[in-house]
Amino acid sequence: MSQSFDIAVVGATGTVGETIVQILEERNFPTADLHLLASSESAGHSVPFRGKNVRVREVDAFDFSKVQLVFFAAGPAVTLSFAAKASAAGCIVIDLSGALPSAQAPQVVPEANSQVLEGLKKPLQVSSPSPSATALAVVLAPLRGLLDMQYVNVTACLAVSAQGREAVSELARQTTALLNLHPLETHFFDRQMAFNLLAQVGKPDAQGHVPLEKRLVTELREVLGMPALKISATCIQAPVFFGDSFSVSVQLAGPVDLDAVNAALEAGDGIELVEDGDYPTAVGDAVGQDVVYVGRVRHGVDDTSQLNLWLTSDNVRKGAALNAVQLAELLIKDQL
Amino acid sequence: MSQSFDIAVVGATGTVGETIVQILEERNFPTADLHLLASSESAGHSVPFRGKNVRVREVDAFDFSKVQLVFFAAGPAVTLSFAAKASAAGCIVIDLSGALPSAQAPQVVPEANSQVLEGLKKPLQVSSPSPSATALAVVLAPLRGLLDMQYVNVTACLAVSAQGREAVSELARQTTALLNLHPLETHFFDRQMAFNLLAQVGKPDAQGHVPLEKRLVTELREVLGMPALKISATCIQAPVFFGDSFSVSVQLAGPVDLDAVNAALEAGDGIELVEDGDYPTAVGDAVGQDVVYVGRVRHGVDDTSQLNLWLTSDNVRKGAALNAVQLAELLIKDQL
Ligand SMILES: NC(=O)c1ccc[n+]([C@@H]2O[C@H](COP(=O)([O-])OP(=O)(O)OC[C@H]3O[C@@H](n4cnc5c(N)ncnc54)[C@H](OP(=O)(O)O)[C@@H]3O)[C@@H](O)[C@H]2O)c1
Ligand SMILES: NC(=O)c1ccc[n+]([C@@H]2O[C@H](COP(=O)([O-])OP(=O)(O)OC[C@H]3O[C@@H](n4cnc5c(N)ncnc54)[C@H](OP(=O)(O)O)[C@@H]3O)[C@@H](O)[C@H]2O)c1
Repeated sequence: MSQSFDIAVVGATGTVGETIVQILEERNFPTADLHLLASSESAGHSVPFRGKNVRVREVDAFDFSKVQLVFFAAGPAVTLSFAAKASAAGCIVIDLSGALPSAQAPQVVPEANSQVLEGLKKPLQVSSPSPSATALAVVLAPLRGLLDMQYVNVTACLAVSAQGREAVSELARQTTALLNLHPLETHFFDRQMAFNLLAQVGKPDAQGHVPLEKRLVTELREVLGMPALKISATCIQAPVFFGDSFSVSVQLAGPVDLDAVNAALEAGDGIELVEDGDYPTAVGDAVGQDVVYVGRVRHGVDDTSQLNLWLTSDNVRKGAALNAVQLAELLIKDQL
Repeated sequence: MSQSFDIAVVGATGTVGETIVQILEERNFPTADLHLLASSESAGHSVPFRGKNVRVREVDAFDFSKVQLVFFAAGPAVTLSFAAKASAAGCIVIDLSGALPSAQAPQVVPEANSQVLEGLKKPLQVSSPSPSATALAVVLAPLRGLLDMQYVNVTACLAVSAQGREAVSELARQTTALLNLHPLETHFFDRQMAFNLLAQVGKPDAQGHVPLEKRLVTELREVLGMPALKISATCIQAPVFFGDSFSVSVQLAGPVDLDAVNAALEAGDGIELVEDGDYPTAVGDAVGQDVVYVGRVRHGVDDTSQLNLWLTSDNVRKGAALNAVQLAELLIKDQL
């Protein structure tokens, strides 16, 4: 028997939503009817799928009983408004917005904690973590058994696409203006993004942490199944269109054997380890790829109890759309 | 009596050398004759100083007995070829290339270890540390007495100007090509620098560390006078023209009082602390300024024994030219 599924993508005209549609096609996901949903603003537009243009409709009027699986990729408010409806209609819900509490919709990265899916109870709701937590989980998962990690220290350099289409347009517009000696305008970002680095992404709380940093820490702990792991995170905004990069230092209980680390990374799922001496970059390597790239595997300068790594990952693919589709594949596999 | 000095700037046509000339003028450094030196390539060019154009000459033919003070800002090979000659002629040597061993030419940042200058023996040779070590030293110096620092973890995001004029031109050229949909050319960098982050600056050694990372660690320890301080450094290349940024995490022996940290930073020399909730950036704040900007002073996410900071500094001014001129001011002050 070959079963296929009726699917809705909420936020189908966005950076992530469009990529979900592409990946459903690329991976030949067993799709019967595909419903593309967005706000009234882009209702009537269309998005290509399997050689046809699929019309986008308003999510408000959608009858979720028409589908069995829904991807939520339109921001937390939209998830909070419609996820319960979708679940009540019997759908599997895969959320990419971070809106649902973990107790209700656990954070899952197949390479790190796919076993969580087996224990899920109905209504089936699962969260795809933030791109940073996802990339880090893919790479740290195969090292869990090998290393006694005391502290994970991350500086995440995020692409502007992490903040959606408007952020991408603004970086392009600002860069063009500066090169043509036109006055700089800021709309989306609060200051010049072109040829600059912004020290925080989003609004900090009273303690100075921005939501993405807190998500990185709590989601990574959850996905690795290491609730007590000490993690320090700084998320900065880089003038890069696509692809997140991570400078990672792991403090260990004792000296670390780099050969063993390299072997574990080589053997890990979803990882591409680049050669010693070389390093991966967002633009040249990660963007458009399904794997997380790892390079610069090294000790600290005169500290063999420290492991340093450089990662780069396509924030829209493995960081969001691909991970979500992989979750869907695992959730439906018993029904195929 | 008002004494003034005959001065040579080696590398006067470069990013740093031109700024040294500017700063000598800005700070009204007691300059009699100013000799601008470079390679044969730019001999004959001229550089403005106090409203006049000063002709650039070849360093090879220069008679160092004409001057009392020399700034070396033309790369390590040039320092190694001429510093001994300058010293033999009785000059004070201030090196910006990192070529001279510390035992001979100590690394000094006035805000952190100016006392070293008092103990100096003739021939007077002193090094201005790398821009990263300089910025970090300015900010960590006033915290030395306050905090029991166990580990300093730094990701330094360096501007392309850190690598001189050619790197600046290449970022501009690559960005223009990409925005005009022309093919990308790489000459200076080994891959696309525009809209990308490069995980290492320079060639790594067998252990995977690049020279700048090792300099950051050893110079910062020396300047802070903390030879056993554990420091971890990753230096990445950002698509930013001027201004280095630093994501810093300091691990402490116990909980840290942020009010005390803020007060010490407020009181520290050469530091501008931005308001809580705000953050400084290279382009908007640091570039063209003499101070190191600090923001995002915060604990770790649920770890009060960690101190996180974001710094940004003009790599060419405080990171090099200004620090060198400040060193010169201190070295001549007894002779004024
Ligand atoms: N970009 C990333 O790297 C990334 C990675 C992981 C997770 N995420 C998360 O995924 C979600 C979407 O991000 P994105 O980057 O794709 O944003 P985006 O490019 O700005 O797209 C937003 C999408 O949401 C839709 N939308 C906005 N308001 C809506 C409403 N009231 N009702 C229905 N649809 C609405 C938009 O439709 P219209 O065309 O009608 O405006 C559009 O399809 C966010 O929660 C984001 O945090 C993003
Ligand atoms: N850029 C920074 O942020 C920074 C900060 C701290 C320290 N530094 C150090 O300062 C030095 C200069 O850096 P930069 O960024 O100013 O480089 P740059 O812009 O490329 O300028 C290099 C300068 O050195 C001169 N030069 C090159 N080869 C020479 C030779 N064989 N003989 C005499 N002069 C020669 C050049 O003269 P021509 O015009 O004749 O080629 C030019 O004046 C380097 O050691 C660098 O590591 C740089």
